[in-house]
Amino acid sequence: MHGDPLAPVLLILLIVLAAAKLGSEIFERLGQPAVLGELIVGLVLGNLVLLNADWTLFEPLRAANVTERWALIIDSLARLGVILLLFEVGLESTVSEMAKVGTSSLLVALVGVIAPFILGFGVSYLFIKEVPADVLVHLPSDFSVMNIHLFIGATLCATSVGITARVLKDLGKLQTKEAKIVLGAAVIDDVLGLIVLAVVSAIVSASITGSEVGALSLVRITAMAIGFFVVAIALGVVVVPRILHYLAKLRTAGMMVISSLLLCFLLSWLADAVGLATIVGAFAAGLILEEVHFKEFKETIHLHELIRPISTLFVPIFFVLMGIQVRLETFGDSSVVGLALGLTVAAIIGKQVCGLAVVEKQLDRVSIGVGMIPRGEVGLIFAGIGKALNIVDGALYSAIVIMVILTTLITPPALKLTIARWGRKR
Amino acid sequence: MHGDPLAPVLLILLIVLAAAKLGSEIFERLGQPAVLGELIVGLVLGNLVLLNADWTLFEPLRAANVTERWALIIDSLARLGVILLLFEVGLESTVSEMAKVGTSSLLVALVGVIAPFILGFGVSYLFIKEVPADVLVHLPSDFSVMNIHLFIGATLCATSVGITARVLKDLGKLQTKEAKIVLGAAVIDDVLGLIVLAVVSAIVSASITGSEVGALSLVRITAMAIGFFVVAIALGVVVVPRILHYLAKLRTAGMMVISSLLLCFLLSWLADAVGLATIVGAFAAGLILEEVHFKEFKETIHLHELIRPISTLFVPIFFVLMGIQVRLETFGDSSVVGLALGLTVAAIIGKQVCGLAVVEKQLDRVSIGVGMIPRGEVGLIFAGIGKALNIVDGALYSAIVIMVILTTLITPPALKLTIARWGRKR
Repeated sequence: MHGDPLAPVLLILLIVLAAAKLGSEIFERLGQPAVLGELIVGLVLGNLVLLNADWTLFEPLRAANVTERWALIIDSLARLGVILLLFEVGLESTVSEMAKVGTSSLLVALVGVIAPFILGFGVSYLFIKEVPADVLVHLPSDFSVMNIHLFIGATLCATSVGITARVLKDLGKLQTKEAKIVLGAAVIDDVLGLIVLAVVSAIVSASITGSEVGALSLVRITAMAIGFFVVAIALGVVVVPRILHYLAKLRTAGMMVISSLLLCFLLSWLADAVGLATIVGAFAAGLILEEVHFKEFKETIHLHELIRPISTLFVPIFFVLMGIQVRLETFGDSSVVGLALGLTVAAIIGKQVCGLAVVEKQLDRVSIGVGMIPRGEVGLIFAGIGKALNIVDGALYSAIVIMVILTTLITPPALKLTIARWGRKR
Repeated sequence: MHGDPLAPVLLILLIVLAAAKLGSEIFERLGQPAVLGELIVGLVLGNLVLLNADWTLFEPLRAANVTERWALIIDSLARLGVILLLFEVGLESTVSEMAKVGTSSLLVALVGVIAPFILGFGVSYLFIKEVPADVLVHLPSDFSVMNIHLFIGATLCATSVGITARVLKDLGKLQTKEAKIVLGAAVIDDVLGLIVLAVVSAIVSASITGSEVGALSLVRITAMAIGFFVVAIALGVVVVPRILHYLAKLRTAGMMVISSLLLCFLLSWLADAVGLATIVGAFAAGLILEEVHFKEFKETIHLHELIRPISTLFVPIFFVLMGIQVRLETFGDSSVVGLALGLTVAAIIGKQVCGLAVVEKQLDRVSIGVGMIPRGEVGLIFAGIGKALNIVDGALYSAIVIMVILTTLITPPALKLTIARWGRKR
């Protein structure tokens, strides 16, 4: 009679969270990272429809453009989940720790953008000889296939840090230098990938409309992206402790968890406003906040203990949803699979080259390279932009999706394997 | 470039949470319950548009039918907030404690449904002499105005327990017998109010279509409602400890918070499925779970300490949103205000009669009556059903909204006042 519109959301949450715990329990018993279990149960739930055409419960979550009310809400809770995850991961590092590995992170990120770009361009050059007929109808007749190669190169640049951060967290390795380098590099990567995508999109758009590329707008977006991070961290380190000093004097309850989440939401929103991923802002917020800032608060609990129950609720939704959105049927199209495998190999090798850029000695370069592999939702976002620009057709989109799936599924077990060797070496 | 659709949600969350903390800080310093501060800052935020027609940021949240994507998500987070609040309130009571005050709760609830029904019917009879012309066009010409009186009586029945629960929590009085009686009565009230509404809706529908009232369907919905609560609690007490005994053996992290939230979501969803409010299920889940059930879990923290950070994040969203949705301009229509004040007086006196039904001696009957006053979102839901049945027109809807606003705003300070007298009496 009341008919709460939240009821279907509660039902899906029930299924998703119960499945997440089942999956992570099974994979932990197999000695694998819990996050892999969450991805796999999601993959099973989402693809049950292949077994029985009536099992369409999760289809609204798998639409290219989610519109169903409850699906929108689950999708938003998942996005909140990945923001909270990166905030939590940021909390486990400090700005000074990140600065220590800054040179390596920067070099890893630079190599991790350049190498996959060249390899992706190369694979596209080998597999795609001309602009596909189904997209050419939307484009000028003199549109060069080089634009598509450029775009695919850009798609391979970005690292999706969520998976790697979660695996390192599951394995208790977030405090290692390798983890700091990968996380720092992934954040710089997001900035660099954004710049590459902005530049390539501008070139492609210009060649579609026949206009000039605005060099000024490329410089502007680049400056915005780099500026955000430098300014956010610099201001954060100076201003945040002063503000928290005053907030600690308030009488109202729960100020510790609310003030830290407000900083997380603020920087996530600002990151989005300057064109970066929200998770970059969330990570920056976590980096800025340190346990010592809260010593004046009346709460006697540690900040990460306050955040953990919230992230325990939301983070699994993100990973189960990533699994649900994998369409197993895309693996069945053989014309797509060749290109997809080529891109996947380029994506993996491109990031392996990263490891060579680490300046510190005695670090595990293979683990660093493996940690940079997953493209996750960032790759899907790039593919979506290509679709919007009318240069990515259905087959190419499927190939990119398969590349994203494979890099995402390969990373947890591969990272687990490479990290397992540390025990023997050290 | 990424363009996270969550970004506008993060911005609104920032404003809403910061405003909530500002409001609760000011009201706590004034010696008032924090929740009143949250309602008032929400009221200010939502009505800024009256000062400046350009300040329309919150208008999508105030639409009769929320459709904007970010507003839908904020609305859902608020609904999750009130579910978590009632779950938390339920956690602070046990089934056996509720059973002790069961007779009083049942009597309070019965009187709290009958008295406001009669008074609401009476006020409607005094103010509304004929079916308003603007609704009569949708109805048969022989449609009796008695149907409207019946419907208004039903609208005054239900108690919205969220406000009272929060005030009692803010004042640290959840462990008093008065609190248990009010909470128990409010839950029973929801069941009774549902039955009254179902019966009245069926009578009104039948007189619109000229058909017979299905006595069988009335019996069915009544049985479902009562059955849910009895079965949920009985099964919960028997089954839940056994399931938790097994879950405690799992290796995956966070099982304590996830398993308790799963029970909360399950019963909330089931409550909705049998036609009750989701919050009734959430309260039942909290009642069933007791600290002792989790003694085998590896977490060393108390359950309520795990739930608190989550509720700290979500509960204020609900109360600020309730404030935002108050339209101050409805207070300006004098033809509406008379009826509204009549309904408000009926709503208040009707629930004051409740206090007389308490069988225990030496309890504060006035506080119990005051605690039952707020109609909150339940009143709004009833008004919405009336609109859907075409028997509630714009003026009557405004009058019901004003009644809901006044009963909601009066309760926190009134309860604070009546409870303050305890100190002198005891």
